[in-house]
Amino acid sequence: MNHKYATILGNLGNTSDRFLSVGYRDLTSKEELIRQAASIPEVSGIELVGTWDIEARNVTQIAALLKEHRLRCAAIIPDHFSQKIWSKGAFTSRVPHVRQQAVAYTKEMLDIAAELDCSLINLWPGQDGYDYPFQGDFQRAYDWLVAAIRECADYRKDTKISLEYKLKEPRTHSYLARAADTLVLVQEINRENVGVTIDFGHALMAQENVAESAVMLARTGKLFHLHFNDNYRYWDDDMVVGSIHTIEYLELLFWLRQMNYQGWFSMDLYPYREDAREAVSESIEWLKTLEALIDQAGMAKIEALIQEGNAIKTIREMRKLMLGKSNG
Amino acid sequence: MNHKYATILGNLGNTSDRFLSVGYRDLTSKEELIRQAASIPEVSGIELVGTWDIEARNVTQIAALLKEHRLRCAAIIPDHFSQKIWSKGAFTSRVPHVRQQAVAYTKEMLDIAAELDCSLINLWPGQDGYDYPFQGDFQRAYDWLVAAIRECADYRKDTKISLEYKLKEPRTHSYLARAADTLVLVQEINRENVGVTIDFGHALMAQENVAESAVMLARTGKLFHLHFNDNYRYWDDDMVVGSIHTIEYLELLFWLRQMNYQGWFSMDLYPYREDAREAVSESIEWLKTLEALIDQAGMAKIEALIQEGNAIKTIREMRKLMLGKSNG
Amino acid sequence: MNHKYATILGNLGNTSDRFLSVGYRDLTSKEELIRQAASIPEVSGIELVGTWDIEARNVTQIAALLKEHRLRCAAIIPDHFSQKIWSKGAFTSRVPHVRQQAVAYTKEMLDIAAELDCSLINLWPGQDGYDYPFQGDFQRAYDWLVAAIRECADYRKDTKISLEYKLKEPRTHSYLARAADTLVLVQEINRENVGVTIDFGHALMAQENVAESAVMLARTGKLFHLHFNDNYRYWDDDMVVGSIHTIEYLELLFWLRQMNYQGWFSMDLYPYREDAREAVSESIEWLKTLEALIDQAGMAKIEALIQEGNAIKTIREMRKLMLGKSNG
Amino acid sequence: MNHKYATILGNLGNTSDRFLSVGYRDLTSKEELIRQAASIPEVSGIELVGTWDIEARNVTQIAALLKEHRLRCAAIIPDHFSQKIWSKGAFTSRVPHVRQQAVAYTKEMLDIAAELDCSLINLWPGQDGYDYPFQGDFQRAYDWLVAAIRECADYRKDTKISLEYKLKEPRTHSYLARAADTLVLVQEINRENVGVTIDFGHALMAQENVAESAVMLARTGKLFHLHFNDNYRYWDDDMVVGSIHTIEYLELLFWLRQMNYQGWFSMDLYPYREDAREAVSESIEWLKTLEALIDQAGMAKIEALIQEGNAIKTIREMRKLMLGKSNG
Repeated sequence: MNHKYATILGNLGNTSDRFLSVGYRDLTSKEELIRQAASIPEVSGIELVGTWDIEARNVTQIAALLKEHRLRCAAIIPDHFSQKIWSKGAFTSRVPHVRQQAVAYTKEMLDIAAELDCSLINLWPGQDGYDYPFQGDFQRAYDWLVAAIRECADYRKDTKISLEYKLKEPRTHSYLARAADTLVLVQEINRENVGVTIDFGHALMAQENVAESAVMLARTGKLFHLHFNDNYRYWDDDMVVGSIHTIEYLELLFWLRQMNYQGWFSMDLYPYREDAREAVSESIEWLKTLEALIDQAGMAKIEALIQEGNAIKTIREMRKLMLGKSNG
Repeated sequence: MNHKYATILGNLGNTSDRFLSVGYRDLTSKEELIRQAASIPEVSGIELVGTWDIEARNVTQIAALLKEHRLRCAAIIPDHFSQKIWSKGAFTSRVPHVRQQAVAYTKEMLDIAAELDCSLINLWPGQDGYDYPFQGDFQRAYDWLVAAIRECADYRKDTKISLEYKLKEPRTHSYLARAADTLVLVQEINRENVGVTIDFGHALMAQENVAESAVMLARTGKLFHLHFNDNYRYWDDDMVVGSIHTIEYLELLFWLRQMNYQGWFSMDLYPYREDAREAVSESIEWLKTLEALIDQAGMAKIEALIQEGNAIKTIREMRKLMLGKSNG
Repeated sequence: MNHKYATILGNLGNTSDRFLSVGYRDLTSKEELIRQAASIPEVSGIELVGTWDIEARNVTQIAALLKEHRLRCAAIIPDHFSQKIWSKGAFTSRVPHVRQQAVAYTKEMLDIAAELDCSLINLWPGQDGYDYPFQGDFQRAYDWLVAAIRECADYRKDTKISLEYKLKEPRTHSYLARAADTLVLVQEINRENVGVTIDFGHALMAQENVAESAVMLARTGKLFHLHFNDNYRYWDDDMVVGSIHTIEYLELLFWLRQMNYQGWFSMDLYPYREDAREAVSESIEWLKTLEALIDQAGMAKIEALIQEGNAIKTIREMRKLMLGKSNG
Repeated sequence: MNHKYATILGNLGNTSDRFLSVGYRDLTSKEELIRQAASIPEVSGIELVGTWDIEARNVTQIAALLKEHRLRCAAIIPDHFSQKIWSKGAFTSRVPHVRQQAVAYTKEMLDIAAELDCSLINLWPGQDGYDYPFQGDFQRAYDWLVAAIRECADYRKDTKISLEYKLKEPRTHSYLARAADTLVLVQEINRENVGVTIDFGHALMAQENVAESAVMLARTGKLFHLHFNDNYRYWDDDMVVGSIHTIEYLELLFWLRQMNYQGWFSMDLYPYREDAREAVSESIEWLKTLEALIDQAGMAKIEALIQEGNAIKTIREMRKLMLGKSNG
C-alpha cells in the first residue's frame, strides 16, 4: 500500500499546557520546522494551522518553503481556537459579529488553501460548545453551525471542508462531539464538499471503536481526512501512534483499505517531553509495521475471519500475526 | 404539565445479575406485578417485555388485567436478548434463519401490540453488537439492520418502532450505541414510523448530555420514547431517577417541554436490593418535584438564561431554584 | 520462566448475565469441567468457587478428581456473593448474624482449603459495598471488615487470605475497591497471612496501571495472588488475556519477574459466547508468547530502558520486540 | 458551622490552556487579585502558588498585603510544575541535581510559609509521574518520593506538608494518583506532619466517592487539607462547586463534620470564561447552602439514615431536604 503520510507542523514546535504555559520546549523557526518535517521518512505533506503557521502575510514564504522541501500542504486547519475572540465560540458565538468573523476568516483560509494547492481544510471549531448545564443553546447552535458551514462550502466548491469532531476540550462539551453527531450535521448541511475528519484519539475518547466509526462515515462517502495519535481512552493525550493501542490500529488500517480510503494519514501529536521529530517518525514506523502485517496476512484472510466471527480463532490468528513467536 | 408516566413491568419483578443469577428477590405473579404497578401514584401505563411478560398465549389474559387496572400498554419490548437463540445477535446474527426469526418475531409482537391497543414497540437489540477486535462485520451488520427494521416498519405502518440505543452490555459494543449513530441508521431506514428511544442512563454511559441528545433527535422528529433511571455515568446501574443526577434531569425536562415531547415518561429500573414499587414511586416523585421547579421558574425565564449563556448567573439561579435556601 | 498457570473452574462452565439469566451455555458436570481444565496445556492448578464448585459435602469427591487429573487447588474463592443472604453485604451486612455467618463460613472454607492441600483462599466480598449516596456507613464497614478478616486470619495462620479488590459490580461501590485501598486495610488488619489479589481487569477498571499496582503491593510483600483476563478499561468484561491490552501485559509480566512474584497465574474469564476451554487455552498462549518476548529481550535490557526513561526509544524497542517486522 | 473558607489566588487571575496559551483573560496585578479575594464574602484565607504568587523576593510585600486585607495565608503551593526544570519530574526526576533542587526549593517555601504565619504547605508534584508504558520506574520513584518528603518534613516539624493527589495531568499517570495510594506513601514516610489533601475534582476523576476518601484519610488522622471545585468525573474541569455534583457534596460535608475536620475549605477553580470573583463567590454560596441543609436536617437524623441503610428512604428524605417542594 502506498499511503500518503503527513504531519501537522505544530507537532514539531513548542507545546504547552495550562500548568507550563510557556511551553516544554524552545521556539523553533518556521523554516526549521518545515525542514525537520521534510527530513522524516515517508512524510510528503504537512498540515498548517492558522495563526500559528499560516496567515495572509506569509503565504508566499510558506509556499516557497514547501516547494523547496518538496512537501505538499495536506490540509489547513483554520484557527478557531487560539484567539481570545473565539473563547466563547466561533460559529456559535452568541455575538453576531463574531459568528460573521468566523465565516469570513474561514473563507480567507479557503483562498489561502487554494493558493497553496491544498484541496482540504480541516475545521476544528474547538471553542464551539458549552461547559455548564443549561448553558448549551442547542437549537440555535446547530442552526448557526449548519448555516455557517454551508456558506463556507458554497464559497469554494473546489475545496473540501472536513469537520473534525472531539468529545471535549477546551470546552467540557463540543457541539461536534462524535463521528455520528457530526455526520448528522453534515447530512443536514447537505453539500458534496463537506465531510468528516476522524482523529484516532478523539474517537477513543468518545468510547468509539475507531474502525467502526471509519466504516460508518466511509459508507456514506463522508470520511474525508484522518488524524493519527494515541491515548489512554479518557483524554486526548496525543501520544505516539501505536504506543498504547495496537490491535485497534490494525483493525482500523484493515477497514480503511477495505473502504478504499484515499486521503492522507496525518500525524497529530503533542510530544510535550519527547523529541518531536522522533515522535512523528516513530508514529509512521508503527503504521508501516502494521501495514506490513496486513500485507503479510492478506486482506482476504482477515475478511474471512471477520465474516466467520469466531472470536477465539481471530484472536489466535492475530496473536500469531502480531507477535509471531508462539507455536500454539 | 400533564405527563404520562409508565413503568416497565419487570422493574417490579425479580432482578438477577451474573453473580446472583437466581435473583435478589422472590418471584411474583404477573397479576400481582400489574396490581402493584397500578397502585403507584401517577402510573397510567406499563411496558411489557416479550417472553418475560407477554407472548401470544397470554395476550387475552394481559389485556384483561390491564383493563381491570385501568392501565394502558405504553410500549412492548420484544425479547431479542434473553433467549439463547439471540446470544450472538438477532437482526445481525451470522445465521440467516436467526435473522429471519428476529424479523418474524418482531412482526408477531407488532400484532400483539395492536391487540393491546399499544402504538409503539421499543426495539432493544441488545445482543446485536460485538465483543472483540476484528469481530464486528460493520457493513453487513448495518445492511442487515436497515433491511430488517424496514421490513418490520412496513409490516405495520400504524405502529411506531422506536430503537433504543445503548453503548454496551450485554455485548462490549452495540451496533445501536449512541443517539446519533441510531439517528444515522434511522435516516437510512427512512420510514416515518421508525424513531429513537432515549434511555437516560444509556445516554449518560455514552458520555452524552441527555438534554442535547433529546434536542438533536426531536429536531428531526425522531424522539419517540423515553426510559428514565439514573447511574454513575460509567455503567447502566438502573438506579432511582434523580438519585445521582439532579441538574441534568432538570435540563432534560426543560428541553422536553421546549421541544414539545408528547410521549411517555417510562421508568426503567433494576432495583436489585430495594423495594421495587417504592423505587418506581420515588422515581416519579423526583420527576414531579423537578417539573414543579420548572413551573415555578417559568419556561421563559429559563430560556432567557440559556440565551444569555452566563454560566455563573445560571448556576446561581439554579441553586436558588433547587435548594432555595440561600440569601446569596 | 516456569510460571504456575491455573484457571478458575467456573470459567469452563455456564455463564449468565442479567438479561440471559439461564446462561449462554448448557450445564456441564463437575467431572467434565475438571477434565477439560486438566486438558489445557500448562494448566496445573484450578481455583474452586464456594457453593458453585466446592462445599463440605463434596470435598472428598473433588479431592479425588484433582488427584486423578494431577491438578492442584490453586485457591478457593469462598462464596460471599451468589446467595441471597449476602445480597446487602457479607462481612459488612447491617445484620449481626449475617456478619457472623460470613466469618463462620470463611473459616469452614479455610478448613476445606487445608483438606485440599491448598494454601490460599481468595476473598472477594463482592456484595460488601454500597449503591447510593448516604448509604455507605464507612467507619463501621471498615471496622467490621478489619475485625472479621483478622478473626479469619487468626483461625488458620497456615493459610493465606488474599483480598481481591474490584471497583464495583455487583454494588456500584465496593469497599475493597482499589489496590491501595485494600493495602491500607491489609496494613490495619496487620496479619502476616493477609494480602492482596490483583485481577488484571479490576485494576484496569479502576484506571490503575496494573504493573504499578503490582510493584506497590509486592514492595510491601503483600502481592499474594493474580487473576488474569482483559477488558476495555470501563467494565469487568473478563475477556481473553491479551486480546485488548498487549503492551500493558508485557509491562506487568516484566515487573512480576523483577519483583520475584512466586504465586499462581490464574485465568479468570467469562467467555459468554466462546468455547470456554479455547478461551482459557488461548489466554495462556498469550502469556507464554509475551513471556518469550521478555526472554528474548532480556531483563537487563528492559531494565536499562526503564532506567533511561526515553519514551521514544522505549516505544521503538517495544515495537521491534513485539511486531519485529520493521527496519526502522 | 463556622468553616474557614479560602481561595487559591490564581483562581482570580488569568487562565490558559494548551490551545489558548496566552490566556482567556487579561493579566491583573497581585494587589488587585488580593483585593478581589478579600472582597468575597466568607473568604478569610488565600493560598499562594510558588513562582506565580510568592517567592523569596516578594514575601514582605505579600505579607503586607495580606495584613492590609485581613487575610491569612491558608497554604502555600510550591511550584513543582510550571518551570521547565521540572518537566520530567521534580522529586522523581532521573537527574540527581533536579531532585536535590526540588527538595531545596521546598525547604525554601517552608521557610516562607513560616514567615507568612502559614502552617501548611500543599505539595502537588504534578510532573512526578510518567506517560508511556515501560516508562515508570516505580521502585526508584517511590524511594525518591519517600526520602525527599521525609527530608522536607524533618526540616520544619512545625509545618504540615499535605500531599495533593491527582490521577493524571500534566502526566498521563501521577505517582500520587489516588487517596489510598498517597496514604500508603504517607504511612511509609511516617512523619506526623505529613498528610493528604483531597481535591474534590481529583477524587471524582479517580472514580472515588469523595466522602469515602475523606473518611478513609480522616480515620488515620491524615486528612490535612481540602480543595473544592467540580467536574464531569472524567477530567479536572475545575468548575464552580456544586454546579454538577449536588448530593455528593452534601454527603462529603456531612462526613467532614462527622470526622471533625478542622482545616480550610479552599476553592481551586479554573474559571476560563467566567467572571473569576463571581465563580469563587458562587462556589462558597453553594457550600453554605448545602451546610444549611445539614443544619436543617440535623446530624443525628442523617446518621440514623446511614445506619439504617434503606436506600429509597434516604433518597426520599434527601429529595425533600434538597428540593423541598414535594408532598410525596
